[in-house]
Amino acid sequence: MKEIKINFDKSGLNLKDILTYSDKVEKISDKMESFETEGSEFLGWKDLPNNINNQELNQMEEEAKRLQKEGIEILVVIGIGGSYLGVKAGMDFVLGEYPDKNSQKMELIFAGDSISSTSLFQKLKYVENKKFAINVISKSGTTLEPSIAFRMFKKMLEDKVGKNNAKDYIFATTSYSKGILTELADKEGYTKFIIPEDVGGRFSVLTPVGLFPFACVGLNIKKIIAGAQKANEIYSSNNLSINDAYKYAVARYILHKTKKLGVEMLVSYEPNHRYFLEWWKQLFGESEGKDEKGLLPHSAIFTTDLHSLGQFIQDGSKILFETVITVKNPKNNLKIFELPKEEDLDKLNYLSGRTVHEINNIAFEATIDAHALIGKVPNIHILIEDFSEETFGSIVVFFERAVAMSGYLLKINPFNQPGVEVYKTNMFKTLKK
Amino acid sequence: MKEIKINFDKSGLNLKDILTYSDKVEKISDKMESFETEGSEFLGWKDLPNNINNQELNQMEEEAKRLQKEGIEILVVIGIGGSYLGVKAGMDFVLGEYPDKNSQKMELIFAGDSISSTSLFQKLKYVENKKFAINVISKSGTTLEPSIAFRMFKKMLEDKVGKNNAKDYIFATTSYSKGILTELADKEGYTKFIIPEDVGGRFSVLTPVGLFPFACVGLNIKKIIAGAQKANEIYSSNNLSINDAYKYAVARYILHKTKKLGVEMLVSYEPNHRYFLEWWKQLFGESEGKDEKGLLPHSAIFTTDLHSLGQFIQDGSKILFETVITVKNPKNNLKIFELPKEEDLDKLNYLSGRTVHEINNIAFEATIDAHALIGKVPNIHILIEDFSEETFGSIVVFFERAVAMSGYLLKINPFNQPGVEVYKTNMFKTLKK
Repeated sequence: MKEIKINFDKSGLNLKDILTYSDKVEKISDKMESFETEGSEFLGWKDLPNNINNQELNQMEEEAKRLQKEGIEILVVIGIGGSYLGVKAGMDFVLGEYPDKNSQKMELIFAGDSISSTSLFQKLKYVENKKFAINVISKSGTTLEPSIAFRMFKKMLEDKVGKNNAKDYIFATTSYSKGILTELADKEGYTKFIIPEDVGGRFSVLTPVGLFPFACVGLNIKKIIAGAQKANEIYSSNNLSINDAYKYAVARYILHKTKKLGVEMLVSYEPNHRYFLEWWKQLFGESEGKDEKGLLPHSAIFTTDLHSLGQFIQDGSKILFETVITVKNPKNNLKIFELPKEEDLDKLNYLSGRTVHEINNIAFEATIDAHALIGKVPNIHILIEDFSEETFGSIVVFFERAVAMSGYLLKINPFNQPGVEVYKTNMFKTLKK
Repeated sequence: MKEIKINFDKSGLNLKDILTYSDKVEKISDKMESFETEGSEFLGWKDLPNNINNQELNQMEEEAKRLQKEGIEILVVIGIGGSYLGVKAGMDFVLGEYPDKNSQKMELIFAGDSISSTSLFQKLKYVENKKFAINVISKSGTTLEPSIAFRMFKKMLEDKVGKNNAKDYIFATTSYSKGILTELADKEGYTKFIIPEDVGGRFSVLTPVGLFPFACVGLNIKKIIAGAQKANEIYSSNNLSINDAYKYAVARYILHKTKKLGVEMLVSYEPNHRYFLEWWKQLFGESEGKDEKGLLPHSAIFTTDLHSLGQFIQDGSKILFETVITVKNPKNNLKIFELPKEEDLDKLNYLSGRTVHEINNIAFEATIDAHALIGKVPNIHILIEDFSEETFGSIVVFFERAVAMSGYLLKINPFNQPGVEVYKTNMFKTLKK
């Protein structure tokens, strides 16, 4: 498998400290594997990489290919939270901010992710004169943001190509049996992709929620699943000494509980990871933030945000630790070229011959020392191999495994989200008046 | 002026509590206005809106118009930190994520904002076959990230149009008298725009750092300055009872010091504000995060992140408060249309006739009650008028004034950033080996 290497050298913790949790972790792991933990009705994500069948993957790939062949330019992905962050994360992780036109088969735009009229209007305008398809993603179909956006994009598409044709360009990713969206899809004759009942929104990126849009945009979804499967073999072990996902969970638990740090900042040196960090924030924040517990998830892109949050991290209040992701192999390895001496006006010739990636790594080494050794901010380092689909599948499983363990260490149910309902209840009360 | 209204009703603070700081604020304000505070050599931002002369604005507008007329498709803005966040913030604030083609005169892309080889390569490829100009922004010209990117984009442009022509499409925004970039610009014959010596990076958005790219993309920079001027009249008052920027500074100080909250989350209900929040994070994090002091700045877009960080805010560790921005007038006011009863499959007809913006406001009201009253998370509310240039200019001044006061209340120098140098010193040591 594409390796994920974790390093605690700058975390202020010894491996010995972490391994004192071996028995506890083994117990939790065993209970989780036998579905005896709280929230175990939502443990479906755990075995997802092995349970997904090739037929389902093939169907998604075929539909994606049909759309590509017919010249569909844009897939409008309508969803919020777990029905949006994982898709955006995976697309950016593999393709980047300015994807190479040859590797990107279709543009994705995301709607139904807010109730901003200004934003929704712009997105409707943006697709108006282009060939677009719609993938509406919602387990129930009652979530307000995607419902509003879907009503509008659906009408636009029907007005454009006719109601009868529109149904070939609308895909519903939803619950199999119940809910407004599955009924609507059946009545209208849309192709449906199914979100398993036992998989919660924030754990759904390796279901059709993520996989169908990935296939449309041109990612190899079988490679994503292959990466996830290999990671799952390693990170399902109940043996803490060989399970780095659980080591990460224990380390952050110690930093939170013993060192009294309230915030974890996930950092990456790659702008491609911006939305992967957002996905992680939902995964950890929503899983752990209950009963007045949990680490507040924060994120930053370095070196970008060294010129923004860097000052605070180095010298400000001591309330956070960092977990830093770097990538071993860049997609493209630019080199600093030499200029004739009289043209070396930017005085960069001393770097000529070095690769940009090498310099990025030197910045990382310099920063981890500055923050951890001088600033006394604990740092955990995660090295991943590359920007491939396999690596994306693996790192998703790594963090999903970690958050489950982490939640149980905190003695909360990592799979519910009662707090999200509070504002919704208030809101629907007013709306239905 | 376009009004900015601040409301402390859900902050857990009384106006009386805030006004007990009147004397203190008056003293600090008076000392600041007479340049007697620590760091006063960097107070240039304070009088910037009044000091900028029309001639300079005209020159920027003329150069921008020339580029537009010549069919330049992309302006590559090369800068990091304060030389990038304000530009991106203003552009998104006014134009949005998917700008209307008629109001956007040129595409902006940002480079030199990281050392990722993968990202830089993609950006070079992206502009390769397009007509582009370059605006390199750096006070000194020694910052590593923009230097590397500039060397590469400069070469690409020179190879493309010839060295002699290239100089008409390269603009340097830099220090007047000293530094590598100003010398380079003089030697190469580039048009220079000047960053005043007494204005630090994170306070520079209303200098040519922001203004020239804004003019290129099609914003009315005179309106931005007009908004800033009007705000400056109000928010320079030493009278706390009529100065809402200073009230905001005092409120967050009390929440930090008395209520022991470590994190401020700036929230907006408009995706257009994503990079405005990033700009704010630099402004506050870099100004306050020193001597082991300061609030950690965090940000979120709602309702988007109610489906991500919402659970933590509602029910997780009690370490944060929220400052929430909403907008009075949307750019476009979509309405939920009614469907024939038998087609009301999404069951949204009960909302028909209501505007999307109205629903967004109901979501805001529901959330502030859920978070503040039930979740006991203090909330400050800031209502701004619209997405106009004037409002952007005003809200920039509001927060700049606030952070200066806030820093002095914390007894730190808000205008230096000694901690940013630590990793740089480490890095250059290795690079120069």
